[in-house]
Amino acid sequence: MPAPDPIEHLIGLLARLPGFGRRSARRAVLKMLMQPEQSMLPLAAALRDAAAAVRPCRLCGNLDDQDPCHICRDPQRDQSVICVVEGVAELWALERAHAHRGLYHVLGGTLSAIGGVGPEDLSVQPLLARIAEQGVEEVILALPATVDGATTAHFLSDRLRSTGVRVTRLAQGVPIGGALDVLDEGTLAAALKARRVV
Amino acid sequence: MPAPDPIEHLIGLLARLPGFGRRSARRAVLKMLMQPEQSMLPLAAALRDAAAAVRPCRLCGNLDDQDPCHICRDPQRDQSVICVVEGVAELWALERAHAHRGLYHVLGGTLSAIGGVGPEDLSVQPLLARIAEQGVEEVILALPATVDGATTAHFLSDRLRSTGVRVTRLAQGVPIGGALDVLDEGTLAAALKARRVV
Repeated sequence: MPAPDPIEHLIGLLARLPGFGRRSARRAVLKMLMQPEQSMLPLAAALRDAAAAVRPCRLCGNLDDQDPCHICRDPQRDQSVICVVEGVAELWALERAHAHRGLYHVLGGTLSAIGGVGPEDLSVQPLLARIAEQGVEEVILALPATVDGATTAHFLSDRLRSTGVRVTRLAQGVPIGGALDVLDEGTLAAALKARRVV
Repeated sequence: MPAPDPIEHLIGLLARLPGFGRRSARRAVLKMLMQPEQSMLPLAAALRDAAAAVRPCRLCGNLDDQDPCHICRDPQRDQSVICVVEGVAELWALERAHAHRGLYHVLGGTLSAIGGVGPEDLSVQPLLARIAEQGVEEVILALPATVDGATTAHFLSDRLRSTGVRVTRLAQGVPIGGALDVLDEGTLAAALKARRVV
């Protein structure tokens, strides 16, 4: 055995994290073991604290140590616009872009025939309830530009039609900084079709 | 702020690990937050346990939860051969190769004029003491094939000459599975020079 039990155990757990394999887990553990008190104990405490404090927001599904989350509680946010995202990762990504000043709604996935994900597996009813209760004027569908994402967007805009709310979706086109010659044909065609007057 | 405090704090700590950046740390934290009890608490406990239990072996410098370490305590290991390595990572790598049945000695670095690492910064005296005390017959210098590694190997073989012990070093040549056309010239020249009759 290359390493004794507590070390192997720790490497095994770290190696399960996305983006980490056994090799990088081993390297990280070795580095932490150089200064266990300064590196391992704070990380252990941070993991415990996060596990204890963080819960999904009962309104939007964001992960936060407050419930409702800090976005739903923020009086500065525009309550009349809800941005629908697949998961919390997408919510955080949009927050980092500082481009959306409204609220969010985490669906918890996208419809997938292959994955066996139906409408009842997604947070659709709570979204309809929020629209009925708060004076929501616009729902932005910020779903992935995949087949499942498009299916989900189609399904949702169907369901939202009766509410009379304005339903929009993210623009598709050339990414900022993207070189045209490496872009796929679908994106190029979409960007050309949606071209704008400068 | 894209995420609230306990989450941001955890991401910040994880992002400091080698092989991890903010992006992968965020992804890992999000994944763990899907099942905090099953993923975060065991990892926190494993970190605490390892920090509490693991110490450098007083004989060879290996990291282990026993002192002396499980290699130094193993009666099956050949006490007369000591393999000198730069660090614990190299010791573990050699153990994974199952090719060395003797003991180890962790130097704790290599001599480096630029890095300001002198002989007094390395575990040289303890190595000499071990050679004097146990009937050591061979010292294998498994040091990196770099300038600093070669300097250190040269320095050590000088210091070990008076002990009468046999000093060897790892063979240099073509790595197993290595394609010749991508190998550097230094390795090719060394492999050609050290060629063997088949």
